[in-house]
Formats: sequence, C-alpha cells, structure tokens
Amino acid sequence: MVEGIGASPGIAMGKAFVIPTWEWDFPDKLIDVTDLAYEFERLYDGIRHSKSEIEQIKQEFVSVLGEEQTQIFDAHLAILEDPIFMSEVQGIMQRQYKAAEVAVKEAIEKFVNMFDLLDDTYMKERALDIKDVGNRLLKHLLGALEETLPPKDQPYVLVAKELQPSQMVHLDVNQALGVVTMLGGKTSHVAIMARAMGVPYVLGLEGKLASPIQTGDYLIIDGDEGIVYVNPGEPVVERYKARKANWNAMQESLQKLAHLPSRTRDGVQVNLAANISSVKELAHVMGSNASGVGLFRTEFLYMDRSTFPLEEEQYAVYREVAERLNGRPVVIRTLDVGGDKNLDYLALPEEENPSLGYRAIRISLDRTDLFKTQLRAILRASHYGRIKIMYPMISSLDELRRANLVLDEAKRELDQEGLPYRPDIEVGIMIELPAAVMISELLAQEVDFFSIGTNDLVQYVLAVDRMNEQVAHLYDPFHPAVLRMLKLTADNARLHGTHVSVCGELAGDIRALPIWLALGITELSMSVQSILKVKNSLLQSRGSDGPQIWRELAPCPSSAAVTEVLGRYMKSGLAGEEAETDSGPSAAGNAAQAPDSGAPGSAPSFKGAGEGQKEEPKAPVPPPYPAGEYC
Amino acid sequence: MVEGIGASPGIAMGKAFVIPTWEWDFPDKLIDVTDLAYEFERLYDGIRHSKSEIEQIKQEFVSVLGEEQTQIFDAHLAILEDPIFMSEVQGIMQRQYKAAEVAVKEAIEKFVNMFDLLDDTYMKERALDIKDVGNRLLKHLLGALEETLPPKDQPYVLVAKELQPSQMVHLDVNQALGVVTMLGGKTSHVAIMARAMGVPYVLGLEGKLASPIQTGDYLIIDGDEGIVYVNPGEPVVERYKARKANWNAMQESLQKLAHLPSRTRDGVQVNLAANISSVKELAHVMGSNASGVGLFRTEFLYMDRSTFPLEEEQYAVYREVAERLNGRPVVIRTLDVGGDKNLDYLALPEEENPSLGYRAIRISLDRTDLFKTQLRAILRASHYGRIKIMYPMISSLDELRRANLVLDEAKRELDQEGLPYRPDIEVGIMIELPAAVMISELLAQEVDFFSIGTNDLVQYVLAVDRMNEQVAHLYDPFHPAVLRMLKLTADNARLHGTHVSVCGELAGDIRALPIWLALGITELSMSVQSILKVKNSLLQSRGSDGPQIWRELAPCPSSAAVTEVLGRYMKSGLAGEEAETDSGPSAAGNAAQAPDSGAPGSAPSFKGAGEGQKEEPKAPVPPPYPAGEYC
Repeated sequence: MVEGIGASPGIAMGKAFVIPTWEWDFPDKLIDVTDLAYEFERLYDGIRHSKSEIEQIKQEFVSVLGEEQTQIFDAHLAILEDPIFMSEVQGIMQRQYKAAEVAVKEAIEKFVNMFDLLDDTYMKERALDIKDVGNRLLKHLLGALEETLPPKDQPYVLVAKELQPSQMVHLDVNQALGVVTMLGGKTSHVAIMARAMGVPYVLGLEGKLASPIQTGDYLIIDGDEGIVYVNPGEPVVERYKARKANWNAMQESLQKLAHLPSRTRDGVQVNLAANISSVKELAHVMGSNASGVGLFRTEFLYMDRSTFPLEEEQYAVYREVAERLNGRPVVIRTLDVGGDKNLDYLALPEEENPSLGYRAIRISLDRTDLFKTQLRAILRASHYGRIKIMYPMISSLDELRRANLVLDEAKRELDQEGLPYRPDIEVGIMIELPAAVMISELLAQEVDFFSIGTNDLVQYVLAVDRMNEQVAHLYDPFHPAVLRMLKLTADNARLHGTHVSVCGELAGDIRALPIWLALGITELSMSVQSILKVKNSLLQSRGSDGPQIWRELAPCPSSAAVTEVLGRYMKSGLAGEEAETDSGPSAAGNAAQAPDSGAPGSAPSFKGAGEGQKEEPKAPVPPPYPAGEYC
Repeated sequence: MVEGIGASPGIAMGKAFVIPTWEWDFPDKLIDVTDLAYEFERLYDGIRHSKSEIEQIKQEFVSVLGEEQTQIFDAHLAILEDPIFMSEVQGIMQRQYKAAEVAVKEAIEKFVNMFDLLDDTYMKERALDIKDVGNRLLKHLLGALEETLPPKDQPYVLVAKELQPSQMVHLDVNQALGVVTMLGGKTSHVAIMARAMGVPYVLGLEGKLASPIQTGDYLIIDGDEGIVYVNPGEPVVERYKARKANWNAMQESLQKLAHLPSRTRDGVQVNLAANISSVKELAHVMGSNASGVGLFRTEFLYMDRSTFPLEEEQYAVYREVAERLNGRPVVIRTLDVGGDKNLDYLALPEEENPSLGYRAIRISLDRTDLFKTQLRAILRASHYGRIKIMYPMISSLDELRRANLVLDEAKRELDQEGLPYRPDIEVGIMIELPAAVMISELLAQEVDFFSIGTNDLVQYVLAVDRMNEQVAHLYDPFHPAVLRMLKLTADNARLHGTHVSVCGELAGDIRALPIWLALGITELSMSVQSILKVKNSLLQSRGSDGPQIWRELAPCPSSAAVTEVLGRYMKSGLAGEEAETDSGPSAAGNAAQAPDSGAPGSAPSFKGAGEGQKEEPKAPVPPPYPAGEYC
C-alpha cells in the first residue's frame, strides 16, 4: 500500500500497464574485436525492428488522427536513417569496441546534449525526438520487447512517471480503469481531465514505492483516499470489491437524481452546467442532464498539432457541440494558452513567471489574426445552437473593448460573405484576476455575463502557484479574502443585471455550495463527474438560508472559521435519506422538503445578503435561463 | 546614439569600462606536432598568470570583505590545479593536436555540460566556477590581457551584458559615473539600487548596438531619456555638458528644499522617508533630510556570502543604522528572498512561477531558526534607536500571528539572557498581496502599521510580471483596480487607527502624489534620490484638495482617465516658481502658500474622501510621528 494524492475520485482495480520511462542505467559493456560483426548485426536488427514498429503505430494512428497528426512518426523514422547519427554510433563501436546499446546510448546523449545546449525550442524538440527514438531502439537492443502501447480490448490501469494533457486526450475511457503517476499535481490539467473523464487518478508516488510498478502488476487505485495497492492480498481485494460495489450503488443513486429539477428544497433554481475540454465528453454531459456547457475550453483544439486549427476545423467542432447540446447553451471560451498550457508552434518565449505573463486574451489581442479566425468559427457555429462567447483573463475595460472590436470585425466580414450567425450572441468574460473583481462594477455594464474562474483568482489573490508543492498548502479557496472578492463580484453583477456563474474547481466542491446560496449565484459549471454530487447537495439545501449563511460568513477572520460555517450547512448524505435526519442549523420552510416534489419555480428574492460595507442588491437575480427549460 | 530604457535618471559622461562577457567564437585552431611543446608552454604560462591574478584579486578583496567572502577565489584556484580537468586539456592537445586555447575551451564545454546535466544546484554552481576560471585562462591564452577590474582612482561608466545585485553593491559610487547594461528591467533590483545610489543607468541595449562598446570608448548616458551616445561628436558633448550643468543646478535647487518642513502649502505634514538596502546609503538619507528609513531591505545582508549571517553580524548592522539615524525611525523588513531574489546557500528549489512561490515570510515561517535569529538581532538593536519590525508578503491573520509567536519567543529568550531591547517595539506588515488588501480591516486590528508595497501589489492585482518584457506594457500602477485597493487599505487602516505608509516605487513618483493626498496617506518611503523631488511637489500641493481629488478619481474607468486627473493636480515646477504661476484647479486656502512659512501643524481632517461603497472614515489620521520632530 502506498499513499499518494487522490486527484480524481473512484476505485479502479486491474492490471497495470506501465508507460516505460527511460533510465540510462545499464553497465558500460565493452566487447571483443571478434564480436564486432555480431554487434553490428544486432544494431541493424534493432533499427529494423524499431522502424517497422514505428510504421505500425503510425498506421494505427493515421486512421484515428488523420495524416497531419502523424508527422512525428516520420521524424522518428528519419532519425533512424540519419547518416550523422548512425556514423557516430558506428564510430563508437568500431573505435572503442563498445556494445551496440552502449554506442547508441552514448550517441544519443551526445546529440541530446548538443541540441539541448542550443537554447532553441525547435532543436530542443528534436532532442526529445532523438530520446524517444533512442528509447525504442535501446529497448530492442536490450531485448526489453514489451509493447509500449496499452493492450487492446483489455482493461488496464495506466501507470507513468508523468502524463501530458495530450496523452490524456487519447486515453480510451472504455479501457483505462484508472491512472497512477509518480509526479503531477492535484490541480494540474491532467487531473482536471481525469475528473472530467471519470477516471480514478492517484498521483505523487515519486519516492514512495519500494520497487517500481511493473506492467502486469495487480493494482487497486483508491482515488478518494489517494491510495494505491500493488499486488494486494485477498482480504484487501475483497474489501475493495465491496467498496466498489457500494461506490457503484452510490453512483446509481446519484444517477437517479439526473431527471430531477435542479433546485433547492425550497425551489431556488440553480443551474448546474458542465466544464468540458472535448467533444468526447458530451455524452457524459447529456447523461448527467447538465443545464448546458458553462465552459468549453477550446485550447485542446489547438494542442497535439503542428499548426493552428483552421476556421473550418474549429467551426465543425463548435457546431457539433452546439447541435449535440440540442438547445442547451454552451459558453465557448476563446483560446486560453500560456501559463501552464503551451503550444509549440506559437513559439512562446520562456518566461520567469508564466502565470503572470503572456497568456490568454493577451495573446489573442496581440495575434488578432488567430483571434479573429476563432471568433469567426464561433460566430458561424452560433447559427446552429445557443452559443455564447467568453474572453479569458480580462483585466480592464480596454481589453474587453479591444476584444469586442475584433468580434465586430468578424461579424462584419461574415455579413459581407453572407454567412449566417447569431447577431445578438451573448458575450461574457472570466472574472479571474483581482483587477477584474475590483472593477467588476465597470465590467458588468459592458458584458452579458461573468464567469468566476476560482482557480486562477485564488492563485492571484493569495500569490500562490497552485502547482508548486512548496506553497500548495497556502492555496486556499476558503480564505476570507477570496470570499470577499466573490461577494464583491456577485453584488456588482447584480447591480447591473449581469448574469454570474462560477466555473472554477470550487463550483464542483459541495463544501462551497452554501457560498453560492449566500451570494445568490444561480449557475455553477463544473466537471461532469461532480454535477450529480452537487445536485444531491442542492436538493437538500435551502435557498432561504442564503442571507443567514452570509451573515455568518462575512465576519469570518480565517479560512478555518469559513469552513466551520460551511460545514454546518453542507449536505453530503444521499438526498433520499435527508428527510428523516434533517437537523440543520436552520429549521424553516419545510414545505418543499421532498426533493422530487417539484416545488413551484418561485425563486426567493435573495435580497438580504448585503454586508454593511457593500451596496444592497437593487433587484432580484433574474433567472439566467427560463426556469425548468431543461429539467 | 542608441535608445535604451532609462532606469535611473541623471547624466553621466566618461570613459567606458566594459565587464567582458565570454563568447566562444574563436576558430578551432589545429597545430603541428612540432608545435606541441610550445603549446604546452603557453598553457602553463596561462595557468601561472591566471593563478597569480586570482591571488592578487583575492588579497584585494580580503581587506574589504573579510576572509569568508573570498572562498570563491580558492575554488577558482583549485580548478586550475584539478588533475582531471588538466588531463582532459592535455589529452585533447596531445591526441588531436589542438591549440591550448581550443583544448581549454573544449574541456570547459565538456565539464560545464556534464555538471549542468546533473540537475543539482551545487554542481551547476561548480559549472559556473569552471566557466569563470576558463574565461580567465582563455583571456591569457588569447593575449586579451586587459584588466577585468575597473580602473582605480579614475572615474568610469560601467558597461556589462547584465549585472547582479551583488555586483551593484560593490560598485564604488565615487568612481562609477553611470551604468549601461544590454539586458535587465527598469524595475529590477539592480535598477532600484542604481536609483538609490543616484547612479544614472540605461539598460536594454541588446541588439541595438552596431558594434559592442569597448573599454575606453567615450560615453554619454542620459538616464532620463534612456539614451546612450558612444564616442559622440563635439556638439553632442557640449549640449550634454550644458544639460548636466542644468541638471546639477536643479539638484542644488532641490537640495535647498531639504531643510524645509515636509508639508503641503496648507500645512498637511507628509513624512518622506527613504528605502535603503545598505548602510552605505545612510549618508544620502541624512543629506536629503528624510524623516527616517521607511524600508530597510535586509536581504542584501544575506547576499554575496556562502552562509547565513550570524546574529552578531546582523545586530551590528541594525544597530549602526539605528544609531546613525539619530532618533529618526527605521522600519526593518525581515528577510524577503525568493521570487527574483535568490540565496544560493538556501538551496531554494526551481519554481515554475517564483513570484507565486516560496518566498519572504513563507520561508521565514518555515525556517523559524533563521527567522528568530534575525528577530533577535533586530530586537537587540532596537535598544539603540527607533526600530520597527515589518513582515513581508503577509496574506492572512494566521501568518501574522505565527510570525508574532516567533517574535515573542525571541523576546523571551532575550529576557532570560538579560539582553536589552525595546519591549514595545512596533510591528507592521507589508500590504502587497490582494489578499492582504481584502482583509486589511482584520489585519489592521493586529498591527501597528501597514506599508503598502505597490510593486508586488500591482503585479498580483493585474497578474503581470513586471520583469517580463512581453507583458511589461500591462504593468500599470494607475489601473483603477489598484486605486480601489489602495483606497480600501487606507480606509480600513484609518478605521482602526493603524498607520499607513507606501513604500513601493509609486511613492517616489510625483504623478502619484495627488493619490496620497486623496487617500489621506501621510507617509511615503522611496528611493533617496526621489525624496527632494517629491518634496518639491508636496510643497506646492494642497492637502485640502484631497477630497476633491478622490471625487474625481473614484469614477475613473481606465488608467488613462486616472492619469488625466492626476496630471491636473501634479506640481512639477520648482517650488520657488510656483507662487507666481499658481492656477491649479482648486483655488482655496492660500494662507499657507509660501512653502517655508512654517504653517502650524494643524492637519486637515481628511474626512470627506469616502466613496458610496466604502465605510466613512471614523477618525482623523493620527500623525505618524510628532509633527515637526525631524524638520
């Protein structure tokens, strides 16, 4: 049993498939002069095998990814035929009488170092290619011939030192039972994707394993507790089988909530939408009966490729999302790269503090060519469904207005070309910088909606990089400063009738639900996997508690005090059980207690949440979408 | 003429001294077998010269820096005697018939790459040592024998590719007329130090020079305009001589303001204190008649050494500062490393976003041993002057309280040891995180003072790394969001009678002075060089304009609007000239118009600045120090 960090909940049990990580740790084997011919034969055999293996993988991927995505394999093949590389290998063998694998290893090291030293992004990538190919060739030379692709038609638990978002995108959720990595962070994009895909994920095992996990080891992954068992005994397996059955039962119970209206027991409608990163996740979105897609991250369209996606490609994807949502709204966020998400072909410079650097709307406003292409694609798709546009990382009115100028230009172009789009398409912004919060009263007057991005907001408010293990313990979404920023944003939005939703990780955390009730926020967008869990809490909560919750939260001097208050209002039991055990701090309004009683849509006024320092809300929150439309 | 970025104002004219940057760009010279003995002779000669040169520099530095600081030179000597390194060099010469400098170059490259690859901070530093020594040895082998130390007893303009803060600390201000670097940022610590030292500094010439500046070139540095002239013609020299004379005259006029009380024309006392980084700057502090030291950056005590400074060392420095200030207060900020300031011996991990990482109080609360040592030293020194303690980067009450616990422990220890200290020493915090601003009303109740660090605050509010050229244009201290944060902090402090000062770069910017009047902030701490300029503006401003200024600033939707308002209230002419030309937007209260009339210290009430959304201030600001005490 090894304790790591639970990054995506759930239990997985099955055989490990380990993505090998190359370690340069075999002995420096010298050979006899007489063996030289044999060594050369081994070398050529290894090259031949490597090539046919690469060809085979390439063919498999062509059908899935299309021709363009498989260029990487051609690059790998070219290295195996490169005369300079090969003469280096042969030279080491001939002059120093070293074994083929030793010569290959030394040649790879030499070229990788050389390319690395060049301080050039392109050459550094070539260094990675050489490493990859070398890895494969060495594997053949060393006789380590296990497959580096996961087994087909057979479930497995994926184990790797580290995974890239691009690797996660290709993960087949029908076969991958769970994921284990040695490195990584709970709030990394890989972790977010694992949660979105419903794949249990435990990370952070580096240095904790007595011996490395091998392909074929039997693993139990406990994503809730962050525990991994390697080849556990029968009692543990039995225990987890029981737990898994329970977990499945729980999921089934939650699934039964999908058809219920998304309301508090006293009838306050709170729309629960999904954050998605790919079209693939739409099936889950429909399965959970989400109110729509509150955040469609478009950067994944831009990843795993060597050039920018064309307008037509983007348009096809956006249109597919809009159409498949069948009338439910989708908020498409424009390109949000930079920071921890990079695109090789954008050739972004190395930055000392990428999170405080050139990213998101800053890039879009610099590269208006790319930005306009994306906006045109979104606009054209808007003709086929309820699409809204959202700009990330807005810090000023000026940036918002400049983005809208590009949007206007895109609209004019489409008008001229006679291409249809929704002319009154709603435009909103992410509220994820402290600056945006502080001027939210100005921004609210010029947008249709806000979506609060709690992940980045917390990061900037507290000056804590959520991916940095040294300070991760300081990353605290329940910090009173964060709460006050949320309050300020919600109040300013209400003042101007601007719709507010929350789309950070916090939206999917049931502990935070009382905050949204307190602030009168009636739309949350989250990982698909969280929707029914949050709905379960929502069905047992009372919207009328909101003002009282805020009265208790407002004076909290610390996050400990905040979580104490939230804990008292949190509903984590199953919705059906709650009617019997209700003993919450507020005892009013039991008329709508049964969650499935379909209480009439008379939303409470939400008017009493005002703090001394803040404006009193001037008007009740308009329901963001006609109540009951999707439920 | 080359245009760079003006990083420290003023004009410098004189001969360049260039700190050489090693470029590996000489041809790969092969030699004859018959030359081998001669090449070896050259090699040994070069080594001998390098050694005696290092010995000589070491001796010079021992007297200045003490034995401990010169260990680096022993490390360099050891490399020149290292058998592995030397056999590598000799091997290349013997086997490949390469010239001594080529062999040295190749050996250096090999070892540097090897060490670099080890991904170990210690070994990476050794790689730097090898590079340094190799540089010196190659210089001798190539006959490039110019001195690498600046000339003695002769003024010069320092030119370098890049400078480290440690190099700036050693700069002799009596000889260095100005500084030019190819790289660097306007808000870097080197730039801050240049301003503090009053040394004109232009940076950012990389890629702009037709040919590199050579030692001995005649340079004119215009730090105001950010311009460098290399070997200019007579007319330019004459023009600059005249401008320099003017500049000197201006400085003299400003110097005459030093003895005047630091008040607005209607008698509002605004203390102007100095930010300093070393004891060296105290002479300037006294020369400008600063009200005290508002920020003593202690990290420079920790730099340029191989171990932490002992309590006694720190105590001696703090005590010297306190005593030399002769009753004026000094705010000592506890260690603020991490981010862009690193200490090799602290072995801080590489971070993806150091500015959002492990720094300042986060390190101190982790390394309470070091923290307590510093607090003990400060406490002991407090017996000899008006010392206050300030914690950097506080984000929560919890951090403040934990820091105070260490302070209490230090006090208890001193009590037990019978060592004297000021028991009621004032304790304050930097307000530089958005989180601290948002909970400033809570923090104000537990500290004696706030000092607003605008540099970091702006960085976090806008999510803009001020050192990143890609986004530097977005770094905007006049952003309305920043203004609102300053207002919130000032109002919350006033509510609890907590003293507020400002110690970021903005405090020394005369454009910002109307903001401080609007917020009722009566202490500013800045680079010594800015004090008299700000005082000049202050003497011409009216404190009674404050409420009106805020009424105009509060609704500003953009930084353009903010700077427009500020521009109307800015006073940049010389104080003496203003009485005749006064036509400012507010015409009241001319009773105290003559700046030297010594208007009685009746501070205005500053009560009307409240914005609708904010609390009305409950009490007038208490004057931070007894009025007139130092003026």
